Amino acid sequence: MSKRLQLVVAYDGVPFAGWQSQKNGDAIQDRLESAFHAISGQTIRVHGAGRTDAGVHALAQCAHVDLPDNRFGTEKWLAALNSRLPPTIRVLRCRYVPATFHARFSAIGKVYRYRIWNDPILLPFENGRAWHIASPLNFHELEATAQEFCGEHDFAAFAANRGKPGESTVRLIHRVKIRRAGARCVIEIEGNGFLYKMVRLMVGALVRVGLGKASREEIALALTAPKKGCGLTKLVAPADGLFLVRVRY
Amino acid sequence: MSKRLQLVVAYDGVPFAGWQSQKNGDAIQDRLESAFHAISGQTIRVHGAGRTDAGVHALAQCAHVDLPDNRFGTEKWLAALNSRLPPTIRVLRCRYVPATFHARFSAIGKVYRYRIWNDPILLPFENGRAWHIASPLNFHELEATAQEFCGEHDFAAFAANRGKPGESTVRLIHRVKIRRAGARCVIEIEGNGFLYKMVRLMVGALVRVGLGKASREEIALALTAPKKGCGLTKLVAPADGLFLVRVRY
Repeated sequence: MSKRLQLVVAYDGVPFAGWQSQKNGDAIQDRLESAFHAISGQTIRVHGAGRTDAGVHALAQCAHVDLPDNRFGTEKWLAALNSRLPPTIRVLRCRYVPATFHARFSAIGKVYRYRIWNDPILLPFENGRAWHIASPLNFHELEATAQEFCGEHDFAAFAANRGKPGESTVRLIHRVKIRRAGARCVIEIEGNGFLYKMVRLMVGALVRVGLGKASREEIALALTAPKKGCGLTKLVAPADGLFLVRVRY
Repeated sequence: MSKRLQLVVAYDGVPFAGWQSQKNGDAIQDRLESAFHAISGQTIRVHGAGRTDAGVHALAQCAHVDLPDNRFGTEKWLAALNSRLPPTIRVLRCRYVPATFHARFSAIGKVYRYRIWNDPILLPFENGRAWHIASPLNFHELEATAQEFCGEHDFAAFAANRGKPGESTVRLIHRVKIRRAGARCVIEIEGNGFLYKMVRLMVGALVRVGLGKASREEIALALTAPKKGCGLTKLVAPADGLFLVRVRY
């Protein structure tokens, strides 16, 4: 029987330096590895489906670990891990998976949600959990423009760095769905993969359109001719509003 | 024209020592008074509709202040106050009111909301904003029992202290409404006034019934014969789940 355990993890990103292990131990990965060490007495590396930046939240990040043995049932791991994690990190589920499963390489897609609070005043409860935009957004324009992202495109103009030479910047976006209720606007994006800061750059561009500072045509251009469009799309939406909703396998 | 300004204030209770002014300045009232002082250069006392304890939240607490003059319009006060308050406190609205208006003495009722998270795992985003109850609650019993509170009763058994001698412990509860969606349970209570910790003691009693540790009959007894019922009702629900929703005038 396999010794590989898959974890589904939720976290409030505010108190942490992001997912990836940091020297000061302030990352979510560090906290999980500390919990595994406290339980097993061994160094157990946690492999995430992907990194999330400082301040970014997760409703269901995925990860896997290779345990020294599979003596403990999943219920026992769940309780033991959560009792050693801060309340801002929770393991929601875990299960033993075949050794062929890899949290990162087996992933076939991800769903992200981005929350905007569009009102002159940001409610205290939205602090750290939404992008506060005081000026009124044109939601009709924002929603229409969002559809430009759907389909397969070269998203080089929506990446914060160039990545490794030769690596593709082509990604397939399955859907972009926008819901609005009062001041709250939620943009949900599903794709087969995302470049570094891609969601935040997409949302930044959409907000520029919503504020009348960019046009749908400019976004379309950035997707068809990334080099020409690059300059138009460099507003990075803050981490506060971003939630990793689901990793698809 | 009046120099009395009414304020509607929202706050996340987690970082504060409650509403009422503290020596260390950690209370919401202190933060508001500091903001008024920074703007006007004068000591301006903030009168709240009522105190909320440390950790208790407000969607719309009410308060009033007497300004030295009424030169500034309400929009200006709103912007000036919010720019000097932490993001966890927001003044949502303000308006000049007649000098006969008093935030506390003019109030004719209040609405409170209490949030419970009924699941073995508390989501990180609910931390500090709900009472985490891991064992399954019997919602049918809880909801039926909640109706016992409606109407006029002597709530002495649901008060954390006796109050001043001769003060009435009779209060009128207009409604208790319970909504449930998945793990989330929201209890909304409207009444003409509340004794010290009354909502948290009412919720504590309801949860004991939901867990099978008390009966509807015991709650009814505590309302008809407060002295006999006192011992049954002393579970104080934590501050985390409590929200002051509205003050009625």
